[in-house]
Amino acid sequence: MKKIINNPDLVVEDMLKGMVAAHPQYIKKLENADVIVRANLNAYEKVALVSGGGSGHEPAHGGYVGKGMLDAAVAGAVFTSPTPDQVYEAIKATDSGKGVLLIIKNYTGDIMNFEMAKEMAEMEGINVNAVVVNDDVAVENSTYTAGRRGIAGTIFVHKIAGAKAETGASLDEVTAVAEKVIANVRSMGMAISSCIVPAAGKPNFTLGEEEMEIGMGIHGEPGTHREKIKSSDEIAEHLVNKILGDSPLNKGEEVAVMVNGLASTPLMELYIVNKKVSEILEEKGIKIHKTFVGEFITSLEMAGFSITILKLDSELKELLDATADTPAFKSI
Amino acid sequence: MKKIINNPDLVVEDMLKGMVAAHPQYIKKLENADVIVRANLNAYEKVALVSGGGSGHEPAHGGYVGKGMLDAAVAGAVFTSPTPDQVYEAIKATDSGKGVLLIIKNYTGDIMNFEMAKEMAEMEGINVNAVVVNDDVAVENSTYTAGRRGIAGTIFVHKIAGAKAETGASLDEVTAVAEKVIANVRSMGMAISSCIVPAAGKPNFTLGEEEMEIGMGIHGEPGTHREKIKSSDEIAEHLVNKILGDSPLNKGEEVAVMVNGLASTPLMELYIVNKKVSEILEEKGIKIHKTFVGEFITSLEMAGFSITILKLDSELKELLDATADTPAFKSI
Repeated sequence: MKKIINNPDLVVEDMLKGMVAAHPQYIKKLENADVIVRANLNAYEKVALVSGGGSGHEPAHGGYVGKGMLDAAVAGAVFTSPTPDQVYEAIKATDSGKGVLLIIKNYTGDIMNFEMAKEMAEMEGINVNAVVVNDDVAVENSTYTAGRRGIAGTIFVHKIAGAKAETGASLDEVTAVAEKVIANVRSMGMAISSCIVPAAGKPNFTLGEEEMEIGMGIHGEPGTHREKIKSSDEIAEHLVNKILGDSPLNKGEEVAVMVNGLASTPLMELYIVNKKVSEILEEKGIKIHKTFVGEFITSLEMAGFSITILKLDSELKELLDATADTPAFKSI
Repeated sequence: MKKIINNPDLVVEDMLKGMVAAHPQYIKKLENADVIVRANLNAYEKVALVSGGGSGHEPAHGGYVGKGMLDAAVAGAVFTSPTPDQVYEAIKATDSGKGVLLIIKNYTGDIMNFEMAKEMAEMEGINVNAVVVNDDVAVENSTYTAGRRGIAGTIFVHKIAGAKAETGASLDEVTAVAEKVIANVRSMGMAISSCIVPAAGKPNFTLGEEEMEIGMGIHGEPGTHREKIKSSDEIAEHLVNKILGDSPLNKGEEVAVMVNGLASTPLMELYIVNKKVSEILEEKGIKIHKTFVGEFITSLEMAGFSITILKLDSELKELLDATADTPAFKSI
């Protein structure tokens, strides 16, 4: 295992220290939990957004804490759901009295622990809603999932629900727009190499010299199949077709696109993928409002990428374009 | 060679298409050259900034074309200097009559070709200045370099000289501030894995299972030495000490820090590195004004990182903080 770390058991602690040291103008860590919150936490009279999950997906989710996105991100151990206590601390720390929206990626452990935290907070009289992101069209049910997995589409939920909360909207209004994003966002990914959970010390899975896995999850969960690696155009076409086959998208409608690198895939290759994605959408008469290419939700050092397509209406477009200012996502 | 590409000979062409398709609100490609320019090119009555170099370092430099940074980025073949003709086209396309500043990383080929383009443009009556970034303290002279190499410090030159140009400053004033950044910025990197130039099809160099190379260049040029991989803290300490040993930095002074991933190193590990960097600077009484952690100038799929420290004064601080809006770098 060749990693630039100090101690496999301290990666989350060290990372959170390095993250807060890098961005003190945006974020701080709660003293009693692995929770990243906004630096000037008590300045906001608005619905609070809390997300999180296992670590190893950076910049998700701590990198999205800031103006127009999240108020707190809970960091579990690597690829491990945070405990209910930690999520509860995040809720308690961020509620301004206007309520808290939990944005949960669809993994059984996350759902269980976030729901448990929600109940704990509700017993204290805090209003909490929860939404579950399940954008990955690759497989129905998976290693850690009942139903579809939640992957990169989650970032669009952070951005759009976050912008809605900044307008002073109520908890129900923010929840409704988050649900609208979830209903309209679809993703699918692929990988050409595996990743090593530091504490495990060996690869999560292995792929042959010329092999790729299609529909792989962000923890290396099996996808739809393995095959010999193809050209970028062919891979992009396969993924976009699977996404569009599941999408309520018609000619003339508008979308946002995200080409998300899982970690080791160079930006050069992500742009090569985007070339084909944009060509396919153009051919189909679908208008691209905005495209995001980069690393938004990663899988330790895995090589591969996912494509996300979000169908927009005028409300979603406006909220997507609204100002955001966080360590990992800025919109001017 | 496992890459997500179509054809090794088309990677730059495909990438530029995908990049322009992703960011049409920011950039377009010149029809007659592999040059990325600002989308509304003729709208600016200001000194133009032109940079570039071999491809394979994305988001450098096309990702930095936009408000407050570059006006054009010239994309050579992978790890290969752009031709003088291409640089000349970039100069011609961006000059508004106020002159053009070339920001060159110190590689012999780049210097030769950018200088030749400068002469061609001057013969047409365009005012052109050039600065050479040589921030890498690892080695004096290198495979493709007389003197020190230019690496991640270049991004600070883009940012700060770009902000100066936006104020309406003259070519000489913009050049002077770029030179000030160059005089005050130092970097050093390391790698734990190699990269494969697509057209070559085999690794640039090889490293053993547990080996790292210290002081490596962004094309895999040899560094100071190879040794068994150490802890993140030890590596960070070695690099920071080498940088500070060469820096005109005193207690109480302020700096900007960049921890730059070469491509395959996860953001989690870059933050773990930053933990130690911030601790060392704090111990030494050096104040960190701003920290940037991410992938700013990469080396295809190489794993590793570099640390950059820029000594700031009030002018540099103000220009570093000024608004920038480009595909890969936004400052609000």
